[in-house]
Amino acid sequence: MASVSARRRVYEIIEPGIKRDGLARLFEGVSILIILASVAGAVCSTLPELDPGFRHLLYLSELVFGLFFLGEYAARLWTTPEHPVFGGEKGHGVLAHMLTPLMVLDAAGLVPFFLLLAYPEAQAFILIYQILRFFRLARYSPALATVGRVLSNEWRPLMAAGLIGMGLLLVSATGMYLIEHEVQPERLGSIPAAMYWAVVTVVTVGYGDVVPITPLGKHFTGFVMLGGLIFFALPVAIIATGFLAEIRRRDFIVNYGMVARVPAFAGLDGAALAELVSLLRARKFPPDTIIIRKGDEGDSMYFIASGEVEVVLPNSTIRLQEGDFFGEVAVLGRIRRTATVIARRTSELLVLDAADVVKFMDQNPRVAAVLREAMAERVMAQDVVSA
Amino acid sequence: MASVSARRRVYEIIEPGIKRDGLARLFEGVSILIILASVAGAVCSTLPELDPGFRHLLYLSELVFGLFFLGEYAARLWTTPEHPVFGGEKGHGVLAHMLTPLMVLDAAGLVPFFLLLAYPEAQAFILIYQILRFFRLARYSPALATVGRVLSNEWRPLMAAGLIGMGLLLVSATGMYLIEHEVQPERLGSIPAAMYWAVVTVVTVGYGDVVPITPLGKHFTGFVMLGGLIFFALPVAIIATGFLAEIRRRDFIVNYGMVARVPAFAGLDGAALAELVSLLRARKFPPDTIIIRKGDEGDSMYFIASGEVEVVLPNSTIRLQEGDFFGEVAVLGRIRRTATVIARRTSELLVLDAADVVKFMDQNPRVAAVLREAMAERVMAQDVVSA
Amino acid sequence: MASVSARRRVYEIIEPGIKRDGLARLFEGVSILIILASVAGAVCSTLPELDPGFRHLLYLSELVFGLFFLGEYAARLWTTPEHPVFGGEKGHGVLAHMLTPLMVLDAAGLVPFFLLLAYPEAQAFILIYQILRFFRLARYSPALATVGRVLSNEWRPLMAAGLIGMGLLLVSATGMYLIEHEVQPERLGSIPAAMYWAVVTVVTVGYGDVVPITPLGKHFTGFVMLGGLIFFALPVAIIATGFLAEIRRRDFIVNYGMVARVPAFAGLDGAALAELVSLLRARKFPPDTIIIRKGDEGDSMYFIASGEVEVVLPNSTIRLQEGDFFGEVAVLGRIRRTATVIARRTSELLVLDAADVVKFMDQNPRVAAVLREAMAERVMAQDVVSA
Amino acid sequence: MASVSARRRVYEIIEPGIKRDGLARLFEGVSILIILASVAGAVCSTLPELDPGFRHLLYLSELVFGLFFLGEYAARLWTTPEHPVFGGEKGHGVLAHMLTPLMVLDAAGLVPFFLLLAYPEAQAFILIYQILRFFRLARYSPALATVGRVLSNEWRPLMAAGLIGMGLLLVSATGMYLIEHEVQPERLGSIPAAMYWAVVTVVTVGYGDVVPITPLGKHFTGFVMLGGLIFFALPVAIIATGFLAEIRRRDFIVNYGMVARVPAFAGLDGAALAELVSLLRARKFPPDTIIIRKGDEGDSMYFIASGEVEVVLPNSTIRLQEGDFFGEVAVLGRIRRTATVIARRTSELLVLDAADVVKFMDQNPRVAAVLREAMAERVMAQDVVSA
Repeated sequence: MASVSARRRVYEIIEPGIKRDGLARLFEGVSILIILASVAGAVCSTLPELDPGFRHLLYLSELVFGLFFLGEYAARLWTTPEHPVFGGEKGHGVLAHMLTPLMVLDAAGLVPFFLLLAYPEAQAFILIYQILRFFRLARYSPALATVGRVLSNEWRPLMAAGLIGMGLLLVSATGMYLIEHEVQPERLGSIPAAMYWAVVTVVTVGYGDVVPITPLGKHFTGFVMLGGLIFFALPVAIIATGFLAEIRRRDFIVNYGMVARVPAFAGLDGAALAELVSLLRARKFPPDTIIIRKGDEGDSMYFIASGEVEVVLPNSTIRLQEGDFFGEVAVLGRIRRTATVIARRTSELLVLDAADVVKFMDQNPRVAAVLREAMAERVMAQDVVSA
Repeated sequence: MASVSARRRVYEIIEPGIKRDGLARLFEGVSILIILASVAGAVCSTLPELDPGFRHLLYLSELVFGLFFLGEYAARLWTTPEHPVFGGEKGHGVLAHMLTPLMVLDAAGLVPFFLLLAYPEAQAFILIYQILRFFRLARYSPALATVGRVLSNEWRPLMAAGLIGMGLLLVSATGMYLIEHEVQPERLGSIPAAMYWAVVTVVTVGYGDVVPITPLGKHFTGFVMLGGLIFFALPVAIIATGFLAEIRRRDFIVNYGMVARVPAFAGLDGAALAELVSLLRARKFPPDTIIIRKGDEGDSMYFIASGEVEVVLPNSTIRLQEGDFFGEVAVLGRIRRTATVIARRTSELLVLDAADVVKFMDQNPRVAAVLREAMAERVMAQDVVSA
Repeated sequence: MASVSARRRVYEIIEPGIKRDGLARLFEGVSILIILASVAGAVCSTLPELDPGFRHLLYLSELVFGLFFLGEYAARLWTTPEHPVFGGEKGHGVLAHMLTPLMVLDAAGLVPFFLLLAYPEAQAFILIYQILRFFRLARYSPALATVGRVLSNEWRPLMAAGLIGMGLLLVSATGMYLIEHEVQPERLGSIPAAMYWAVVTVVTVGYGDVVPITPLGKHFTGFVMLGGLIFFALPVAIIATGFLAEIRRRDFIVNYGMVARVPAFAGLDGAALAELVSLLRARKFPPDTIIIRKGDEGDSMYFIASGEVEVVLPNSTIRLQEGDFFGEVAVLGRIRRTATVIARRTSELLVLDAADVVKFMDQNPRVAAVLREAMAERVMAQDVVSA
Repeated sequence: MASVSARRRVYEIIEPGIKRDGLARLFEGVSILIILASVAGAVCSTLPELDPGFRHLLYLSELVFGLFFLGEYAARLWTTPEHPVFGGEKGHGVLAHMLTPLMVLDAAGLVPFFLLLAYPEAQAFILIYQILRFFRLARYSPALATVGRVLSNEWRPLMAAGLIGMGLLLVSATGMYLIEHEVQPERLGSIPAAMYWAVVTVVTVGYGDVVPITPLGKHFTGFVMLGGLIFFALPVAIIATGFLAEIRRRDFIVNYGMVARVPAFAGLDGAALAELVSLLRARKFPPDTIIIRKGDEGDSMYFIASGEVEVVLPNSTIRLQEGDFFGEVAVLGRIRRTATVIARRTSELLVLDAADVVKFMDQNPRVAAVLREAMAERVMAQDVVSA
């Protein structure tokens, strides 16, 4: 029984995102540092002018990193029974676990360690496997995972764009081969050779090592380059659109969590809440930065998700904290800012644009009542102060 | 009578998209392979260092491919009476059929066969017609057809962008000609020559074979390059926007068909259904991939269009199949995922983002009732299990 | 009185867009041809290897074109009283008319004519003014005018992007100058010289005539290029967005006019009509093209704005004309296309996507009734035919 | 007491955006001119062929500019008590003020002055600090500040894109190093050297100073360039989207202020007003430009925020001013423009597209009544005139 719970504890530490306690965070930090150090070491090891002493240090550190990765890999195999997919009675077992992409990547990262001990002269292989370790970061960064998701989401249009691009490259390379293979046999002497020129031209890199030299070739190149604009536009548009949609989805989830900390929104029904969250933008302010400046146009109001801000009134200051809001006086009264507001600690604010404030209040009278009441109180307080 | 029905059968086999039975699919697959092999052979045949034996093999295979294309072309002409446009009593007949773009392309693909037999030394012509066969794929891929549709949809703005680009190129080439035609007469000695420099510069290819060498020419080049950014932006934006709109339209149709397999949506009226479909995204999961991981944020719910998934509960697992849904507990309860879900077979899922779930349920109480009931049952079942 | 009406007639002919009768169209066509011929002649005249006979021909044609432009300019001045701005009792008169941008451009186009007669050796000036004639096309093409409108609309963000770009170029040039002005004094010996390198690099042209040669310079170049991506993104995004918005506005107006020809939409109130127009896309089909193919998915329905289409039924065909609609059976019944439809003449169709059909019908019961009735009739008719 | 109010006055003059009276505007203009002159002087001072007399002039002007910046810096420190953040009883004082980014930048701008007096041979340092003065413009231009805001808003996706880009560069550089480090040891002899090639290739600059020379290297380069398209798309899309959103937000605020000057919109409730403002576009017309031409399509109506326009009727003209509107006759009557309208003074107009006019009127009957009444009057007036 004890060994099972120890295995559970190890699993929680080495698997990111299960539990975020001290040891798990420490392990994550150390792992990322070792991955980066190991990749940096591999990059440096290719410098021909490297000092032999430093090269020896790299060799030693590689052995240490290798031991670390070996231990981690062993721990992952050992904790397979805790894994939701491969563990349990109906799980697929250790072998299936070893064949998942991330575990294969981990295993690949072990290759340099054994090669260094056994065949240290296989430098190219060692280097490739060392550099591949960079992608172990995928375990810790959702960014790389997002890209994978976008590519799998947009598979069909990307294939279509690829087919069009392939056709364009084929026609370009064939045309150039026919036009110039006799005057430049060493550079454009076959369609595969002309294909290199076509790719370099179509993606607008344009090294200049293969260029047209006949007038006809130059005219043809002009049309190929204009056609390249089209080819260039499609994958860029597809991936950019897909990526931004993924980012927007993640932002929604993050803001959704923050809204729960603002009492003014308590009791909103589902549809209103979902609409509100899609209108809010999260912004972070470091300590002692001005959020609102007296006299500016009132372009948005703010809800405090965390941190602390200070409203500077003529003769006094007011501190606002998590769950409070401010900036509604200028927005609702359509006047300029009546006070300066400063972040006193690192503060996460939810910003609602002026246009959205009025629209949203119109459709949600309960929220409107809360905001208007707060505004009335504050305007009165200020009048008393200035009186 | 028999011959008519034989012709009908041949027509169904060789015309893509009429019937998708075994023979039609086989014919489609073989056609695509032969097109690709024929183009690849043409590309290889230009390699000067090619082994004579392999070159002879290419020659023989070209003859075989040519016979295949010849037979296909003859079959298409023979089946003209079955064609909806050119067949029938009021149809335009075989000649009109031969003049359609796709049939002209097919006829062009026959040229290499006859030339190889009659004038094998006309290599350039043979090569051009061989490469053109790549575009026969348009018959089998809707992607190439989509591009044509986008170009015809966006004809007017593209013409406008072209006119602007032409003006920019004219002014750039004239300016450069006037500034440097005396110092670089061999490279910029006429406006047509300077036009080559202008195109290479404006589309940001920048080979470097023609560059300004006077200070004034360098200043002028700076402005031309900045102007090129504008020219570059327009066609890219137009085509990218048009293409994405076409893709979105096709996705709508595909998802529209899938929704019919989900009982929870049965009985939705037209407007609600159309809105729902535009909110859903289709995603495919290979076997044994994790769809939801216990403890993650609940950012969306899933409907199974095809395949099978497994919900991993502490002491048991539940299998869900076509028409079922899952992931609603975390979304509606605004809590973290309470169970891991794994795709057991290749599964097509329809994903509905959390924001859209709450909005859509608010407007469609009947769907909301179905989902809430299912959720209540599941939460209860889990409580029983953990109790 | 007679001379006034003659002036009016001349004004209607030479001013595009006033009246579109035969003479006005002829004048427009001839003007565009002469502009293009004159610019092409100017481009050709710079070819050093030009045949003297052809050069003489260019000289003569330039004199003819010059006379034409002179006559047109005189006619425009003469018809000033008919101009809505400069004519009339309260108008600003001929002088103000001469100072408008288009008239200044016209006057500039006259310079080559007089220079050729007086100082034929001033070749550079003659050439510049000849090339500027290209922009006379702005009178006939709304495209060039649209670009001007976009630039004036987006003036503020473009200035902002320009300021940021300037800062980036300054820092890049200064850094490169400091790093490499001693090793490459002839290429990077001053900040203005380094600025040429910076522009060529930042807009990703990359001629390669000035490149970093020190390791530090290469590192610095890497950061400059990544910074260039940002600079590149801003003006592209601003202009592309603005241009697409202008295009969409024009499309709305064009479709708005077409909708009036469809009886099914008669009597829609303003808001419904505006919404409908923004949903419709106009598409043109040449004669004898398939619009719908039997058995395809029903992804949209069509309204005929002009032209004629033929619905191919098993034993008969139906002709539909301006104001008719088709394709609603598959969309509303959620089935595959039940008949093939072919354009018999050049036809302008208004396309409504399936998603929009159901949404729009839900909100406009009167249109829904018209469409459903038509559908019922057609389905019945087909049943009778097949029975 | 007098000294306090003098300090207040100085603060109002030197701090942009507090008060916009004559002295403050003068100070702002002079500051911008001196910043630009100082940067231009620094750029010129690097020209090796510079005339010694002009160089001396630059030296003297640098001393004058330095004194100006010194005075301004001193004034800013002196007026710290007036600063909303650092002044007041609870403020953080002068030292905290000195450590804000803008003040550090100001202090950096003083370095050249002291270095020129003390160590005039430290030319590189002097130059760097002189060029940095360009960013003092951030105080006067909201554009540079907007970029900062966009970068801070989009921090997370940019980091993600950066990580992906880094992985791509690593793999590209390693691959190229392994393939070609033996044939091009001086150019691709280490991974850091290959990294330079990778960056130049991936951002499509393509200098051509390092290019693949082996067939395998050329194939690999093809894939790297296609991968570069993806890397290129992400940061461009992220920044462009973020920037456009910021611009739209600012436009909303500007238009919001203008709408208050149009009586027809008085009394609209918050939600309707916010919707209206998001539909309006502000456009500026210089004097004597045609806004509407008789006979054109009626694509939008106009509200005058400032300036004066003239409606040209057959026998008379009408002058319209701030608060008036025009163009509604063609839009609401769905006819062509019935009169030409000309801007007589520089006029700021709020444009509402035809589609939005009908939609907005449908939802706001009060505005509709005002517009229809005005239209009825005008049509009647014209009938009387033409009768």
